[in-house]
Amino acid sequence: MTMSMSGALLTDHYELTMLQAALRSGAASRRAVFEVFARQLPGGRRYGVVAGIGRVLDALEHFRFGDEELAFLSDGRVVDDATLDFLAGYRFRGRVDGYPEGECYFPGSPIMTVEGTFAEAVLLETLILSVLNHDCAIAAAASRMVHAAGSRPIIEMGSRRTHEMAAVAAARSAYLCGFASTSNLMAGRVYGVPTAGTAAHAFTLLHDSEEEAFAAQIASLGAATTLLVDTYDVERAVRTAVELAGPELGAVRIDSGDLAEAAQQVRAQLDALGADRTRILVTGDLDEYSIAALAAAPVDGYGVGTSLVTGSGVPTAALVYKLVARESASGVLEPVAKKSVGKPSRGGRKEAFRRLDESGTALAELVTVSHEQPSGARPLRVPLVRDGEVVRREGLEEARARHRSALAELPVTACQLSRGDAALPTVFD
Amino acid sequence: MTMSMSGALLTDHYELTMLQAALRSGAASRRAVFEVFARQLPGGRRYGVVAGIGRVLDALEHFRFGDEELAFLSDGRVVDDATLDFLAGYRFRGRVDGYPEGECYFPGSPIMTVEGTFAEAVLLETLILSVLNHDCAIAAAASRMVHAAGSRPIIEMGSRRTHEMAAVAAARSAYLCGFASTSNLMAGRVYGVPTAGTAAHAFTLLHDSEEEAFAAQIASLGAATTLLVDTYDVERAVRTAVELAGPELGAVRIDSGDLAEAAQQVRAQLDALGADRTRILVTGDLDEYSIAALAAAPVDGYGVGTSLVTGSGVPTAALVYKLVARESASGVLEPVAKKSVGKPSRGGRKEAFRRLDESGTALAELVTVSHEQPSGARPLRVPLVRDGEVVRREGLEEARARHRSALAELPVTACQLSRGDAALPTVFD
Repeated sequence: MTMSMSGALLTDHYELTMLQAALRSGAASRRAVFEVFARQLPGGRRYGVVAGIGRVLDALEHFRFGDEELAFLSDGRVVDDATLDFLAGYRFRGRVDGYPEGECYFPGSPIMTVEGTFAEAVLLETLILSVLNHDCAIAAAASRMVHAAGSRPIIEMGSRRTHEMAAVAAARSAYLCGFASTSNLMAGRVYGVPTAGTAAHAFTLLHDSEEEAFAAQIASLGAATTLLVDTYDVERAVRTAVELAGPELGAVRIDSGDLAEAAQQVRAQLDALGADRTRILVTGDLDEYSIAALAAAPVDGYGVGTSLVTGSGVPTAALVYKLVARESASGVLEPVAKKSVGKPSRGGRKEAFRRLDESGTALAELVTVSHEQPSGARPLRVPLVRDGEVVRREGLEEARARHRSALAELPVTACQLSRGDAALPTVFD
Repeated sequence: MTMSMSGALLTDHYELTMLQAALRSGAASRRAVFEVFARQLPGGRRYGVVAGIGRVLDALEHFRFGDEELAFLSDGRVVDDATLDFLAGYRFRGRVDGYPEGECYFPGSPIMTVEGTFAEAVLLETLILSVLNHDCAIAAAASRMVHAAGSRPIIEMGSRRTHEMAAVAAARSAYLCGFASTSNLMAGRVYGVPTAGTAAHAFTLLHDSEEEAFAAQIASLGAATTLLVDTYDVERAVRTAVELAGPELGAVRIDSGDLAEAAQQVRAQLDALGADRTRILVTGDLDEYSIAALAAAPVDGYGVGTSLVTGSGVPTAALVYKLVARESASGVLEPVAKKSVGKPSRGGRKEAFRRLDESGTALAELVTVSHEQPSGARPLRVPLVRDGEVVRREGLEEARARHRSALAELPVTACQLSRGDAALPTVFD
């Protein structure tokens, strides 16, 4: 797990062979503009959520080809000596603009633009897309879950169901979109996400009886802890829990069975036992749909795992990194676009604005190559990197607040869980 | 990207609170047996593939709570001082047995067993599951794709569609299951997976014409390179490619359109131009089904991205880590199992064997708590860790060969792409 290498090899082989060929042809030094966007919102989602910008900026600052990386590329003959020389001195000196984290996006939204020489910008394709495709996919799912949960908090607990480092990023994206906390300690350490957790079935099974296990947990963690009540028999466990912890018992967790039915029964039982302030947490393969279905059940909070870290059916955001403009042989910056069947792209460096009506409700995503701010529209992009230096940093709390307000601005159809069209039309000029 | 921390915080909060409570109750020192298994094969898959064992062993060797981790746990009051003291001295001193990488598995197969004190074994739950759930999910998809491709090689190129570190592990799993190479340079550096790649549409768009781009690529990478021919017009691009490279042109790549139709036309065109040894590579949202559908097309190789790194619809393997036996207060190791509705588990430390018929075809997965080797069955598990030390290491080539033979041993129904039951019944005793 310990890694001393930079992220420079988190890159596709072909970026380096393109660099080699472009260094030889002389085109490597041409000014180039790459754009990150989604052709569509996969899974019939109605909005996308920008997440991972902070992680991209972190990665950019550490993107260097050191001795270890160069030795690998040389030994494996991935590129020639001239390219190795270039890489040894490489650092990104260009500019980056983009949507800030938490903002919503739509098909064609230019969520990030990377400008520099072709050589310096082409190398960042894979790493930028890896970060954004993962983090935006998780964020899109998280945002829907948070909306479905209403005012009830959600704990993110999916680490075990995804790659160990993806888990940390997933916890970050979930918090950005309004999850209350995560089980992942590294996300607490690295990103300051609040962490939470109490006990698993193994703890109950470890002891000679459920009563012993509960007593041990209360003795150590206090009566305000959450006791897991479905290892053997829920009704007996709830009775034991209240007997041992008293009415100050913080919460019980139910992880199996018909959660709505179980929550009803446990709520009645807790109330009858005088534990009317003891909360009920439910976990177990929840997603936005099952959370929504539990809205009428006496549930006080949710734990979500698998569906969160796998993007609830959409594990990647389908973002692409495309060359949209480049300097020609005569030194002029020209828009470019491929014509591939079914995958056309729009050339030119773009800006983006969100048109709002008088009440502040969003009407359309305006994507323009003219760069003029239309009236009645707010600008969506901010400067992120200038001359290779990160010029804008923000904490997760700021991004979290931005997501709340960006979502509140969308038409109500945006929060429907059913598959459908994007909540806003994208208007290109 | 640079990480100096160990993997010890890639752990769920509740493992540490369980540890704290168990240290206080005294149960922390009880001998405990945890088992990793899948209750079912998600997505109607007919077999699972064990992958990630080598990564688990790497992680285990670095699993330490150093000053940085302890400071975080202390500052955040995650656990009490007695627990911090325990963690400061923590290292796993127990034993691990499991299926070697590349082996196939079925519902209930005990693919890994971790034994030690409860305290030392409970802490490994999240990290072990993260690695195995990710890597096994990718491997299961990769294995199906390799079978669908027959003798044609597949390049793994999905890094941009998954978390940047998951991408490295995905490339490793894909190679383990028979992919020929990966685009991911870090997978080459860390795991020795062969890397491959030539150029993207951006390289063609960068130059003032497709002809200039092709000439630049050939000048730098040689005529044996692969030229991407669908940036503008495929027929014109193929003509240009052969004009510039001659009949020695290595390959052309088609990334869009109806790939079967395009491959037919390009093959005919290449042959007519005398480039009958020039290969045709196809890429663009391929999965095992579309690969199988291209079996009759004149295609020489495939590049697979998104569907590989997302497990082709099954991004996580649904493996769980369950306490199956523990020492009682009287010092006897007893089987334990929870009774949760719909999620029952089977207690006891298990061994596993694969029953074969006289021709060597697998008949059943035998999972036994008796530990006696049945006749006509081969043992499936190997020792991995003893007294905390890794006792078995192997290279990816060995695991790759094992997967080939394990798959060849299964009944032919195993390789059907349709959803269905597991190819082998699991027989418990």
